[in-house]
Amino acid sequence: MTFFNDIGQIKYEGANSTNPFAFKFYNPEEKVGNKTVEEYLRFGVAYWHTFTMDGSDPFGAGTMVRPWDKYKGMDLAKSRLEAAFEFFEKLNVPYFCFHDVDIAPEGSNLRETNKNLDTIVDLMKGYMKDSKTKLLWNTANNFTHPRFIHGAASSNNADVFAYSAAKVKKGLEIGKELGAENYVFWGGREGYETLLNTDMKLEMDNLGRFFHMAVDYAKEIGFDAQFLIEPKPKEPTTHQYDFDVASGFAFLQNYDLQDHFKFNIEANHATLAGHTFEHELNYARINDMLGSVDANQGHPLLGWDTDEFPTDLHATTLAMYEIIKNGGLGRGGLNFDAKVRRGSFEPEDLFHAHIAGMDSFAVGLKVAQKLIDDNVLEEIVENRYSSYKEGIGLDVVQGKTDFQKLEDHALGLSEISHQSGRLEQIKATLNQYLLKAYAGE
Amino acid sequence: MTFFNDIGQIKYEGANSTNPFAFKFYNPEEKVGNKTVEEYLRFGVAYWHTFTMDGSDPFGAGTMVRPWDKYKGMDLAKSRLEAAFEFFEKLNVPYFCFHDVDIAPEGSNLRETNKNLDTIVDLMKGYMKDSKTKLLWNTANNFTHPRFIHGAASSNNADVFAYSAAKVKKGLEIGKELGAENYVFWGGREGYETLLNTDMKLEMDNLGRFFHMAVDYAKEIGFDAQFLIEPKPKEPTTHQYDFDVASGFAFLQNYDLQDHFKFNIEANHATLAGHTFEHELNYARINDMLGSVDANQGHPLLGWDTDEFPTDLHATTLAMYEIIKNGGLGRGGLNFDAKVRRGSFEPEDLFHAHIAGMDSFAVGLKVAQKLIDDNVLEEIVENRYSSYKEGIGLDVVQGKTDFQKLEDHALGLSEISHQSGRLEQIKATLNQYLLKAYAGE
Amino acid sequence: MTFFNDIGQIKYEGANSTNPFAFKFYNPEEKVGNKTVEEYLRFGVAYWHTFTMDGSDPFGAGTMVRPWDKYKGMDLAKSRLEAAFEFFEKLNVPYFCFHDVDIAPEGSNLRETNKNLDTIVDLMKGYMKDSKTKLLWNTANNFTHPRFIHGAASSNNADVFAYSAAKVKKGLEIGKELGAENYVFWGGREGYETLLNTDMKLEMDNLGRFFHMAVDYAKEIGFDAQFLIEPKPKEPTTHQYDFDVASGFAFLQNYDLQDHFKFNIEANHATLAGHTFEHELNYARINDMLGSVDANQGHPLLGWDTDEFPTDLHATTLAMYEIIKNGGLGRGGLNFDAKVRRGSFEPEDLFHAHIAGMDSFAVGLKVAQKLIDDNVLEEIVENRYSSYKEGIGLDVVQGKTDFQKLEDHALGLSEISHQSGRLEQIKATLNQYLLKAYAGE
Amino acid sequence: MTFFNDIGQIKYEGANSTNPFAFKFYNPEEKVGNKTVEEYLRFGVAYWHTFTMDGSDPFGAGTMVRPWDKYKGMDLAKSRLEAAFEFFEKLNVPYFCFHDVDIAPEGSNLRETNKNLDTIVDLMKGYMKDSKTKLLWNTANNFTHPRFIHGAASSNNADVFAYSAAKVKKGLEIGKELGAENYVFWGGREGYETLLNTDMKLEMDNLGRFFHMAVDYAKEIGFDAQFLIEPKPKEPTTHQYDFDVASGFAFLQNYDLQDHFKFNIEANHATLAGHTFEHELNYARINDMLGSVDANQGHPLLGWDTDEFPTDLHATTLAMYEIIKNGGLGRGGLNFDAKVRRGSFEPEDLFHAHIAGMDSFAVGLKVAQKLIDDNVLEEIVENRYSSYKEGIGLDVVQGKTDFQKLEDHALGLSEISHQSGRLEQIKATLNQYLLKAYAGE
Repeated sequence: MTFFNDIGQIKYEGANSTNPFAFKFYNPEEKVGNKTVEEYLRFGVAYWHTFTMDGSDPFGAGTMVRPWDKYKGMDLAKSRLEAAFEFFEKLNVPYFCFHDVDIAPEGSNLRETNKNLDTIVDLMKGYMKDSKTKLLWNTANNFTHPRFIHGAASSNNADVFAYSAAKVKKGLEIGKELGAENYVFWGGREGYETLLNTDMKLEMDNLGRFFHMAVDYAKEIGFDAQFLIEPKPKEPTTHQYDFDVASGFAFLQNYDLQDHFKFNIEANHATLAGHTFEHELNYARINDMLGSVDANQGHPLLGWDTDEFPTDLHATTLAMYEIIKNGGLGRGGLNFDAKVRRGSFEPEDLFHAHIAGMDSFAVGLKVAQKLIDDNVLEEIVENRYSSYKEGIGLDVVQGKTDFQKLEDHALGLSEISHQSGRLEQIKATLNQYLLKAYAGE
Repeated sequence: MTFFNDIGQIKYEGANSTNPFAFKFYNPEEKVGNKTVEEYLRFGVAYWHTFTMDGSDPFGAGTMVRPWDKYKGMDLAKSRLEAAFEFFEKLNVPYFCFHDVDIAPEGSNLRETNKNLDTIVDLMKGYMKDSKTKLLWNTANNFTHPRFIHGAASSNNADVFAYSAAKVKKGLEIGKELGAENYVFWGGREGYETLLNTDMKLEMDNLGRFFHMAVDYAKEIGFDAQFLIEPKPKEPTTHQYDFDVASGFAFLQNYDLQDHFKFNIEANHATLAGHTFEHELNYARINDMLGSVDANQGHPLLGWDTDEFPTDLHATTLAMYEIIKNGGLGRGGLNFDAKVRRGSFEPEDLFHAHIAGMDSFAVGLKVAQKLIDDNVLEEIVENRYSSYKEGIGLDVVQGKTDFQKLEDHALGLSEISHQSGRLEQIKATLNQYLLKAYAGE
Repeated sequence: MTFFNDIGQIKYEGANSTNPFAFKFYNPEEKVGNKTVEEYLRFGVAYWHTFTMDGSDPFGAGTMVRPWDKYKGMDLAKSRLEAAFEFFEKLNVPYFCFHDVDIAPEGSNLRETNKNLDTIVDLMKGYMKDSKTKLLWNTANNFTHPRFIHGAASSNNADVFAYSAAKVKKGLEIGKELGAENYVFWGGREGYETLLNTDMKLEMDNLGRFFHMAVDYAKEIGFDAQFLIEPKPKEPTTHQYDFDVASGFAFLQNYDLQDHFKFNIEANHATLAGHTFEHELNYARINDMLGSVDANQGHPLLGWDTDEFPTDLHATTLAMYEIIKNGGLGRGGLNFDAKVRRGSFEPEDLFHAHIAGMDSFAVGLKVAQKLIDDNVLEEIVENRYSSYKEGIGLDVVQGKTDFQKLEDHALGLSEISHQSGRLEQIKATLNQYLLKAYAGE
Repeated sequence: MTFFNDIGQIKYEGANSTNPFAFKFYNPEEKVGNKTVEEYLRFGVAYWHTFTMDGSDPFGAGTMVRPWDKYKGMDLAKSRLEAAFEFFEKLNVPYFCFHDVDIAPEGSNLRETNKNLDTIVDLMKGYMKDSKTKLLWNTANNFTHPRFIHGAASSNNADVFAYSAAKVKKGLEIGKELGAENYVFWGGREGYETLLNTDMKLEMDNLGRFFHMAVDYAKEIGFDAQFLIEPKPKEPTTHQYDFDVASGFAFLQNYDLQDHFKFNIEANHATLAGHTFEHELNYARINDMLGSVDANQGHPLLGWDTDEFPTDLHATTLAMYEIIKNGGLGRGGLNFDAKVRRGSFEPEDLFHAHIAGMDSFAVGLKVAQKLIDDNVLEEIVENRYSSYKEGIGLDVVQGKTDFQKLEDHALGLSEISHQSGRLEQIKATLNQYLLKAYAGE
């Protein structure tokens, strides 16, 4: 059977048999720099937002109309799986991502849950044989079930710690089985609601122990995926330990884990933490910790995770700039951790939304590559910092100076001359590059 | 001469000769736990906010009425100094803090500036001989002058790097001369306005080099103050590298500086970064990085640093709780990095404001100590985490387990039972303790 | 049967037979000013948060343990009702509030839904006969069901407009039947997600028409409750038309509805809109539009409606100050639109939470009354504005002047002298009054 | 003399003799819809940000390099004036705007201040004779001087009320003299820092009286400019009475002033108030209150007024969409209430910044007009609300129904069917229109 039969009617102006969804900008085979568009934009579909999310919000019930929702239990899981691979194929995406609970229902105990997972993973493997779409990453959902009410690996309850470990263990086994390129840890309940009843040190220590055990187990079973931490400052938990990339980096160094992890950076999580998306990407990149990306966007005036599909071309351009400078994302990709709005409840909207996101990143990629080809920002940076290429500046960089020598230099200065930062001109230039994207200039 | 002659008229109900300012709660000699109030509450007066700040804001001119403002240049500096020690004595505070530019005007070149500083430092030393008030910390203002327009130690201009170094070098010499217990680095311009023209890696590397040179120079001259980094996420700079304690901790570890620095934590900076004050204190404490405190508060609905005098008793209680758990602040103190409101422009308001802050922390100290004496929060925490004292939990903590054993444990669990977190009851209890403070119960 | 049998074990220190829950500060019969505490603090229990809310959040399933949850459908509704009146009696509260869907399940069509409501309303009336607890207000939930996906009275779909009207019509009839003192409109879906597909003018016009029809119908059936609008800026909808009291006031005036409505002001909604709780109360009060209060609090660092039980004594004091100045709330009350935290999942926590809130408002009431008795803030205000009691100021207030006369006056001024605003001293005084509350000074 | 002699060196690619600044998109004579670009984009240069602002911020001294800054007092004022008209001509803008204190220094008393103003206004009139650049609006700066510390028209001090009136009186006279098309009121100090010492009712009443007197005086002298209120929620004052357009509208209605005022809407003020720019424009437009625009933008992650030059093409498009739907701005315009960054300190940056802003609005205008020409959003809206064109929906709009009839209708509904809101598709379409702008499609 097919679930998206009628979607052929999406009438993007210009659709035709080779581009049925009429992408305006995304062409996977196009060359950009020394890669194809698809090699740079390793898009992933998020199983949860696309196949399980029902459109409910804290004040409203689910609204999504999904053809597979007439099924229940394992039948539902199997229908979703079928729909998923139909969707992947129609959209022609290279990757997908899932949490354990997205693909199979929890059973009445852990053993049963694992059995359900085994059934679906088996089927999934079959689908994957006939599909180009691979597993970017999987993860364990250690936040939805009430057992995680006070945390998972940072729970006050050792049984929950054990349960969390068992779920991640299973997740690592599944990842290996399906050839996942990464394994993600998002700690939605790893944090606290209030310090009044919290032992933050013990919780962070336990989190550190947990990660070490995960690293050990992956090695033990020969699962060589890149481990990724996904920072988020808050929501659902009031304060989350992986607040942002910097706090995650502090944690990894403190627990001697920095060689085993990189970051999975989400745009909306960045802004909730008070950073731009490009800041988080840049910070990770310069510390060689940029692993993968959750491609979405937030609403700048709302204080929660709206997980919108990315359509902000300014943001996609600056994100792709960082990714190109990183030499691409390696084993990582651009996972659409994004959900259609509650009012966009038709299956058709799933296509519109992904196309909007893929086109937006395609524009961003082309603009960023053109900026790099034309040496626009590099030249600005090179000029601005040229004083570190010679004289006292070079001494600083080469570690050949000290406070005494620097004071001697400073005492000899008559006046320090500065260059304008030219921010307004740079922004205008960026706009011009953006607008040229479509014209192909 | 005296500057605060008329302040005797502050008519706090209950003022008398031994308590002329009629503190309601602050009594330096009172015993709390095993220390005196003054030993715990090592209050410092901030030279800048109290003696140089003029009450201007981005939309308004200065409003402060200060008797010393009739003087100019070095005379003004000398008058301020005299006024400062009169103020310290009247308020009976143990500490003060300053930036270089607060105490002496900049000259037409660095040499002249240093000469001005020498003159004032000499005078200051004289005042200090006859005063109980000591120097909690000093620092170099590397943010106000236009030369720091693009940063100081993270400037794109190597001359500015050198100039910044020279200023910190002088600051370290002054600190040693005056017996400062700490030396603070606040990087108001160490960050960026936009990544579009910024080499964040070079800037952070240079910042790391700068701090190492500072450490080396202090050692060279035998200045054994505690070095402190004061995090702030933004303002004036759009993004500042020491965003919060966690990002500062990441930086210090990354540049192998963590043994040489602790943190100076400001309440208003914490909230601007999206954290509670107590979070930042706790995070620093459990990592043995809690050095000193800038005691103030922000306005929860305003997005900039309001630097209000601390009067939120809930916040002072939770802050003092962390400080007591830390065994006090060691060489650190509670510096009132707080300014009277623009509308509180009379000299008298300086007293009202400091008294409000000192009384608020005195209440916080007493309530926190009572909570600890009664084992209120400790007992809650001990109960909540008791599962890590035995069985599988103890194995976790002792590093005796792995994912396989944890899975075995999890598979054997029938149901996980949880305790309520009881947050509402705990908050009510906290309120009861707070209200008992005055009654002395 | 009883649902809260075991709650006798709440061991508040000091509990005894006449005060079984050991309120620390709340005593309904105590006199404050010229009223009893209960007359001022017309507390209401929110049916939804206390009897139907399951503790789920956007990332987690329900956690609440509720003895009545073993029932289904109408049996569940009846059990909840029984539990509710048991709870009201044990807590000894004068009021409760509900949405239609809280008390009875929706049927398969509107007629069936109304029948379910009739059944429960009948039973409720019976319970109310034997209870002191009355209905503060009821309302129609026109936001949860998917039919309200694009709005209710402001929906783009006229059928939804009609459906919403039918629900409010039934709500008015129920209110009359049960003697409700107010009727509330909260427009959770009355707003827009994006202007790109929205006709804001038509939506607001329709909202105006809807309110007029509601007013007419209430008059027609002789239901003389006070109509209340409850502002909220956003969540669930991105922008809500009743953003805050001021925008609601603009709307009511624009549609000639201001004589028929007052405001139901929620603390957490105030802060989400960028206002303090006391601002919204004051603004409504001075425009004679203060109707009722949703007593809760938000988390200052979180950007969504946390609906916490109110424990901030500073906020409850300033709120009660406004309410006393308003001569009380008239037919309004203090409805606890507050939910226990997801981790406070035991029935016992419902008591702890309400007690915490009631005690906090009792403290606020006493402190506020004492401030008024001692003329603390009034005297400050009277002095500050004394220039409007005579001369040119009096002319201004009496409308006897114009720009020409004012210029003449200004030209004759030599210097304008100001008083300090004394904010720091005032805040310290407020703290002293707060701490005296317990001591009974 | 000329102040911007060297600016010819701005090497925008493509500059030539007819377009020396090489605008990429702005061509004043181009036709868009039924107007020229210049007729729609009635740009104004803000005197304060461009000719007086020195680049200082709360933590730093001024940085701007301005050739006229070598002068003092009235000579400075005259030089600025000369520079201003040179700048207007080079940039070829139709309008400018100023506060009284921008153009002439305050004297030692009001009479002297007015004399200084008269001198400059006289000179200005001379410049205007030979210039195409006209006065969009002027205003009185009633916020910078310390006399406005506790407010201006809402001050607690009647002398300040009188002084404020005198300044506005003079402003109205100047406006008339110079043919200003509007007169603006921005109440930077009209609000409060704390309610604890504030009589909000008296302050708002006085503000209402003040505006009535201003209206009367303008009529008296025959000055027929459009009066404009410029809302801002906060900064410098903690809470400002004209929080946003809605609260301004509530105020104007409450004091019977709505026929005499419209709104001057600033993008950055909108976002500080929690609204999008287009929301404020739309809300004003549908209530026939859209007067003029302060064209700038804020930083979404900073909590203060950054007043950046507008470069967000998404925002300029949606703004121009509202303005076109409004039939243009009438007597209003697009005033660049925007300042170059502190690091963009060269005179040249003033050009870059204005060009960036003008180009960005030119793009926005073209994209918006194309959207309207193609009926893109209108068609979406028309379809979405079509149910109000017939049947029960039409009855609602025509006022022919009531709750009883609506209930009858609702009881007869079997199921309500909804359309998807298609937000993702709409956003993608918007991006496509934006990118086509440059290609001229």
